[in-house]
Amino acid sequence: MVNIPDWLYEFHGHKCPFVVMGYRMGARALSELGVSRAHNHEMFVFSEMGVGHPQGCLQDGIQAATSATFGKGQMHKLFYGKIAAVFYYPGKTPLRIALKNEFSDRLAPHEFFRLRKQGVEPSEVPAEIANNIVNVVLSAKDKELFNLKELPDFSFRPVKGSFNKAKCEVCGEYVFERYLRRRDGKLVCIPCSGQESAEHTIYLPLK
Amino acid sequence: MVNIPDWLYEFHGHKCPFVVMGYRMGARALSELGVSRAHNHEMFVFSEMGVGHPQGCLQDGIQAATSATFGKGQMHKLFYGKIAAVFYYPGKTPLRIALKNEFSDRLAPHEFFRLRKQGVEPSEVPAEIANNIVNVVLSAKDKELFNLKELPDFSFRPVKGSFNKAKCEVCGEYVFERYLRRRDGKLVCIPCSGQESAEHTIYLPLK
Repeated sequence: MVNIPDWLYEFHGHKCPFVVMGYRMGARALSELGVSRAHNHEMFVFSEMGVGHPQGCLQDGIQAATSATFGKGQMHKLFYGKIAAVFYYPGKTPLRIALKNEFSDRLAPHEFFRLRKQGVEPSEVPAEIANNIVNVVLSAKDKELFNLKELPDFSFRPVKGSFNKAKCEVCGEYVFERYLRRRDGKLVCIPCSGQESAEHTIYLPLK
Repeated sequence: MVNIPDWLYEFHGHKCPFVVMGYRMGARALSELGVSRAHNHEMFVFSEMGVGHPQGCLQDGIQAATSATFGKGQMHKLFYGKIAAVFYYPGKTPLRIALKNEFSDRLAPHEFFRLRKQGVEPSEVPAEIANNIVNVVLSAKDKELFNLKELPDFSFRPVKGSFNKAKCEVCGEYVFERYLRRRDGKLVCIPCSGQESAEHTIYLPLK
């Protein structure tokens, strides 16, 4: 049985199989790449998950195992709707890890998912059912869980950080310089500029 | 002195003032909205942070305090380059919390930032210096830290979840149905379709 830290469920908000699977995927990535937890900005993760499918919990497990977090700008989405992620560590060959179909098929008939499909929220699933499915994930062998593939052509160049900031001349709030705009001769933030940010995440909501 | 969980730094990867500030911002949001940690998908956070400024660590603190995580699809970015976030909880008035300029100014001359600007990575900052700046954040009063503003017109409709998936008829991997495409009469994943995902995050890298 693989060990996971007690705080994983507190951070994530509930106990579910995908946060545990993500933790195992992240731990496997560190081990395959021969690196340790990203204390600073060493590694980047490109999750193939999208929106509108509950398995995104996987990504919290990856954050927790690797510290390649969203906050530090190391966790990105590719929006492919797949239970897979690419681990990019400069100087190492990029590695894609995907959940095996066979393992998805093995979990699918579990009572946990029957309840979830009925609309039961994860935190409301009875503890013995959640514990049972989590133990299925924790006790699986790595080779039952994952397909690994090296992606030597995958490349990424992170944005260079800067501490430079200035106050918006309209609202007075500090703004990091990348996001300062000019309007009516003043240096302003994006909301005060009337522009939209050139950087954003495009989701296409289901109507 | 405000209490934070021991695991915050392990999750985040290092000890820094912004992850602590984010934790306090998230905790304040829960308290102001009168809600508890988001065990499922109750709350959404729209961070005004962007890329290319190191203060993004704030967002990991918010994730840790609220469980409105990136993995569960509850943490989004507005790309304004501001140390602020909007907390959206259906049924409550949306709340914006921003760091006060005065507190930024108070932290700025600290040895921690002098070292960071010299290129010292957060985990390499001597412990006594990191502890000192973190204690400045932990011992500050809420009113010294944050400006709060209700945003009654802020609205958001989350994407409805679905468990439906099918195997890509080319690569054989499972794909959630929102991301299935059609090519040559086959049902395929986005990479096998030759298309790009219609959903993505636009960053404009600094050259």
